[in-house]
Amino acid sequence: MGDGITVGLIGAGRIGRLHAQHLASRIPGVDLRAVADIDLKAARACAVRCRVAVATAHYEEILDDEAIDAVVICSSTDTHTRIIEDAAVAGKQIFCEKPIDIDLERIDHVLDVVGREGVIFQVGFNRRFDPNFRRVRELIAGGAVGDVHLLHIISRDPAPPPLSYIRASGGIFLDMTIHDFDMARYLVGSEVTEIYAMGEVRVDSAIGDAGDLDTVLVTLRFANGVIGTIDNSRQAVYGYDQRVEVFGGAGAVRVGNDYPNTAILSDSESVRRDLPLNFFMERYTEAYVAEMEAFIGAVRAGHTAPVTGRDGRLSVIMGLAAQRSCEQNRPVALSEVAPDLLTSR
Amino acid sequence: MGDGITVGLIGAGRIGRLHAQHLASRIPGVDLRAVADIDLKAARACAVRCRVAVATAHYEEILDDEAIDAVVICSSTDTHTRIIEDAAVAGKQIFCEKPIDIDLERIDHVLDVVGREGVIFQVGFNRRFDPNFRRVRELIAGGAVGDVHLLHIISRDPAPPPLSYIRASGGIFLDMTIHDFDMARYLVGSEVTEIYAMGEVRVDSAIGDAGDLDTVLVTLRFANGVIGTIDNSRQAVYGYDQRVEVFGGAGAVRVGNDYPNTAILSDSESVRRDLPLNFFMERYTEAYVAEMEAFIGAVRAGHTAPVTGRDGRLSVIMGLAAQRSCEQNRPVALSEVAPDLLTSR
Amino acid sequence: MGDGITVGLIGAGRIGRLHAQHLASRIPGVDLRAVADIDLKAARACAVRCRVAVATAHYEEILDDEAIDAVVICSSTDTHTRIIEDAAVAGKQIFCEKPIDIDLERIDHVLDVVGREGVIFQVGFNRRFDPNFRRVRELIAGGAVGDVHLLHIISRDPAPPPLSYIRASGGIFLDMTIHDFDMARYLVGSEVTEIYAMGEVRVDSAIGDAGDLDTVLVTLRFANGVIGTIDNSRQAVYGYDQRVEVFGGAGAVRVGNDYPNTAILSDSESVRRDLPLNFFMERYTEAYVAEMEAFIGAVRAGHTAPVTGRDGRLSVIMGLAAQRSCEQNRPVALSEVAPDLLTSR
Amino acid sequence: MGDGITVGLIGAGRIGRLHAQHLASRIPGVDLRAVADIDLKAARACAVRCRVAVATAHYEEILDDEAIDAVVICSSTDTHTRIIEDAAVAGKQIFCEKPIDIDLERIDHVLDVVGREGVIFQVGFNRRFDPNFRRVRELIAGGAVGDVHLLHIISRDPAPPPLSYIRASGGIFLDMTIHDFDMARYLVGSEVTEIYAMGEVRVDSAIGDAGDLDTVLVTLRFANGVIGTIDNSRQAVYGYDQRVEVFGGAGAVRVGNDYPNTAILSDSESVRRDLPLNFFMERYTEAYVAEMEAFIGAVRAGHTAPVTGRDGRLSVIMGLAAQRSCEQNRPVALSEVAPDLLTSR
Repeated sequence: MGDGITVGLIGAGRIGRLHAQHLASRIPGVDLRAVADIDLKAARACAVRCRVAVATAHYEEILDDEAIDAVVICSSTDTHTRIIEDAAVAGKQIFCEKPIDIDLERIDHVLDVVGREGVIFQVGFNRRFDPNFRRVRELIAGGAVGDVHLLHIISRDPAPPPLSYIRASGGIFLDMTIHDFDMARYLVGSEVTEIYAMGEVRVDSAIGDAGDLDTVLVTLRFANGVIGTIDNSRQAVYGYDQRVEVFGGAGAVRVGNDYPNTAILSDSESVRRDLPLNFFMERYTEAYVAEMEAFIGAVRAGHTAPVTGRDGRLSVIMGLAAQRSCEQNRPVALSEVAPDLLTSR
Repeated sequence: MGDGITVGLIGAGRIGRLHAQHLASRIPGVDLRAVADIDLKAARACAVRCRVAVATAHYEEILDDEAIDAVVICSSTDTHTRIIEDAAVAGKQIFCEKPIDIDLERIDHVLDVVGREGVIFQVGFNRRFDPNFRRVRELIAGGAVGDVHLLHIISRDPAPPPLSYIRASGGIFLDMTIHDFDMARYLVGSEVTEIYAMGEVRVDSAIGDAGDLDTVLVTLRFANGVIGTIDNSRQAVYGYDQRVEVFGGAGAVRVGNDYPNTAILSDSESVRRDLPLNFFMERYTEAYVAEMEAFIGAVRAGHTAPVTGRDGRLSVIMGLAAQRSCEQNRPVALSEVAPDLLTSR
Repeated sequence: MGDGITVGLIGAGRIGRLHAQHLASRIPGVDLRAVADIDLKAARACAVRCRVAVATAHYEEILDDEAIDAVVICSSTDTHTRIIEDAAVAGKQIFCEKPIDIDLERIDHVLDVVGREGVIFQVGFNRRFDPNFRRVRELIAGGAVGDVHLLHIISRDPAPPPLSYIRASGGIFLDMTIHDFDMARYLVGSEVTEIYAMGEVRVDSAIGDAGDLDTVLVTLRFANGVIGTIDNSRQAVYGYDQRVEVFGGAGAVRVGNDYPNTAILSDSESVRRDLPLNFFMERYTEAYVAEMEAFIGAVRAGHTAPVTGRDGRLSVIMGLAAQRSCEQNRPVALSEVAPDLLTSR
Repeated sequence: MGDGITVGLIGAGRIGRLHAQHLASRIPGVDLRAVADIDLKAARACAVRCRVAVATAHYEEILDDEAIDAVVICSSTDTHTRIIEDAAVAGKQIFCEKPIDIDLERIDHVLDVVGREGVIFQVGFNRRFDPNFRRVRELIAGGAVGDVHLLHIISRDPAPPPLSYIRASGGIFLDMTIHDFDMARYLVGSEVTEIYAMGEVRVDSAIGDAGDLDTVLVTLRFANGVIGTIDNSRQAVYGYDQRVEVFGGAGAVRVGNDYPNTAILSDSESVRRDLPLNFFMERYTEAYVAEMEAFIGAVRAGHTAPVTGRDGRLSVIMGLAAQRSCEQNRPVALSEVAPDLLTSR
């Protein structure tokens, strides 16, 4: 395969275009060769912008191109498992945006295929590659806080997505909290066994009318004794709020938000600074680059991806458990949702 | 009664000596006239240090002294209701340290007596008088964060108390979390209706052997739709950790710890500062003064105390609900613990 | 003399009343016995408030009272040397507010008297007792920043004093910068040899009309090679601004302002906090207490005061050099102002 | 000329390679066509890395290529004026790294040529494009601090350059402080009229032996009444220290350092964070991109560059004045160094 990696991108929506740009200009040794989108115009616009040779409405063209080593799947969630399966059978190395799917059976099936075909499979939990969260993980792994006792994750969006998006999202736990479920596992380095979730509609009653929640608080119990919380809101008026705090027997570590500048203004009213970076495109730019570098690195070296199918599956299980907990107002063991939880997949 | 208020102090332990010192020197117009402690030596030492005329082993002497307007009760928790009842019957205005008691029936009885006798009754939730938490309450009440959606309280001690103390404490929820239960109600301005509590022994297995927990996470559901958490640990190695964060529709406010100085040292290793103030005697010095000023002010003006018997009762109910939730691993409605919860008392 | 120290206070203006209150209630073992002020009403009001037995218009009464061990001189600057001399001859231990005087000859004379009489003499540079600056000194002395290379002092008042005050103040360098001259020497632990000062009238032209400056920048050259700056303004609209930064071969340390609370509010406009403590009465409360404790401690132990007459003299010499530098727009060696600078006094 | 801009880069050293990379991948619409370096190997390595067609040892080849619109000059300072003159005569738009030269006569000559030929000329003061300093300028320009009274610039490198570099650098004022001279003018929006500079050798005596200083403090007097300081050290052991503070009649604004992450670790020793970004390649990455975007934007639009030859000339004049001030220990008017200072050039 050599050092150069040839990539095809499937799905040229917002996140697809972001990955296309990084693959085209920021990751050395990558040849982004083709872009597919069922909307051919979108595929073409993305191809022009990133100087990509091929644009197509049919992702199968990418899978048929033997020069292409790897695919980056950014299409809508309901198409993921089909494309993953086709790509695995075609022998492509696979990066797929989160969530793999919102149906556990389909996830299990497609992970079986991926395993059988022996291709590399990475799920798009970009936050693991953020320098702040990465530093927290390093400090925990290095023993700086001792045994972990307590965890808090705060993850609030600056504004809710359109109602059409919410209706198709699978619900806040599978759409938004899923990032935090993965973060919790990543940071603590142990599996969650039980979840208790509370949810409210406080931001916009139309979200409630659409059958979803916009304000949730999830409590996690880990196998290693850690207890923790996740706090989500669809709307923090001051911007994208992404923080964690981990407390242990030897200390605590916390990370705050990233800001567009460090300027502090003092006048007769207050001492103040500008709002944090507004949303994921700004906050996680470098994380997205690092995520794609890690995928390309895994493809190049032929080793396991840093975020696996198992990681993608477990975050969905946690989302399903949170949904059930919230509906029934009781703690729900993950093993209720996935009885084979602890068997390796 | 005039402007001068004459006070007797009952219980000359650590917190009693603190109040004695403030009453003797930092609160204008107060004449601290007598100190009682069942350990006469302790009463005398306190009296000498604060230039108080009378020291006695019998609190009844204070109640019999007609010149004394008000009593400050700092004796052990199991003596509270008896002394409160005697003091109320003697017509004294009453300040009593938290908790009133750990038995709800005894609390209800004594609050009935207090109500019947018409004396002022204040419970010692000192943190309400801390400038940080007070500012949070002001901002919430002033609408700065809009409708409150989420609340987080972190309250961690620098080191666990002696096991003997823990055994007599009534358990972490009634001894330690009780402060945070009151803080939650104070900040949000609404009543908690349901509690889900998780607890672990992570700091010291001897605490578990003594039948208590040292690491707890409590989830609160309020009548007005707010959801929140309380995080407690008996041991934060970096010092006394006392923070809150409140998130609402128009913004968020958070308060951090207080530090002994603002010095920031940068060297070849890190950018760092000294640890926060170590414990409540340092952190809440000014809050204790303000608390006692507020009590004396209420006595002088003849109006209701800023922290009432009802406040003291509700925090105990919350502690009992948290205990039950933790034992049974399910959310517990406060009305299970106190069926007459919403009747005014 | 025993452990109890009997004190008389001379001058019941703003700073005198502050010291009176601390002597009366916050410093154990002190008997504040008499207050003198040429305005007898002021003396009486202060005496009543602090429960002091004697109020007089004549400071000589205090000096004649053999029961009085020590005097605290807070009268107007032009009366300092006369009262110091009388008090020294009367054998009283002496605390005197800064500056000793604005005339170097009178200072030299009175320090000779003080030295001859062998009484303890402390000058009121309260900032040395502030926990922030004290921590900086400790870190420097402990080697945390290595050899000091650079120093920056920022010292800005929230609002200018009345013009009547400015006219009698001796000028900004002797009235305001004098605190920073002392701080510079205290922190660096070496003597300044040369000063270059720039001054402007930017806050209020009436200050210029009164012959003074309101915005100054002073550059210091120390005997040990350190170079540093002092930045003063008579008006920082955001409050009292008192910071230092020290840079050395092994690191740097800086201290910031003190705030009334730690609350941080994030809304759709900004992330902000309340203004710093407004002025010296709030910011330096504990420093004033510690300063007086240190004086009483020196009197009790019979050892040298922590801030000496030499310290008071040198800060005045620095002020005079800064004045000359500013007038002539050139660096001025301190030895120009005081040829005997380096002889011990 | 169209939207596409074709660029040749001259000088493939550290800063040249940085610009090459940005021109090749991060600035849309740019075709980096050729790289020249007297060391042909260096030119070739840079060309390969950035996929540039032409590598040459002779910059004249770039000037002779009619397809090239603009040149980016990153060669050694002593070659700047010759290449600028040749490029201007060849009709190329010019970006040149700072300083233009260290000889004022040569600068004046080459700026005359540039003016006569009517080409765009931008000097590489990258810090103007840093989001922190840019925000300070915006706030000042928008009136947020009112009339500016005082300015402080701190600019310290993490470690001194090699002695060979120092010997050829023109001295600290022209090599290092020159950035801060430009920053001072940029932020305040007024010209400096007089400078007083103090310098020491504190970091490494070998720097002194090489005839240079390593620790300097420069005082600036501006035409509009602002007074300010610049603090430079060749070695801050905690990393690259780049801060400014501006104080005015309506408030103050300050910017701090940028950090690799926001993690704060609290343990039994301290509350701490990682060191700031170590040096200009990390700290100013985005500023370098924005600087080059601004140059390309000026070329595309045919308007004046955001940092002009006049800016480059004035910063050198300030450096020469600082040198003289330091040698003679007196304030030096800029008009002493450049009598025609205020005539437009």
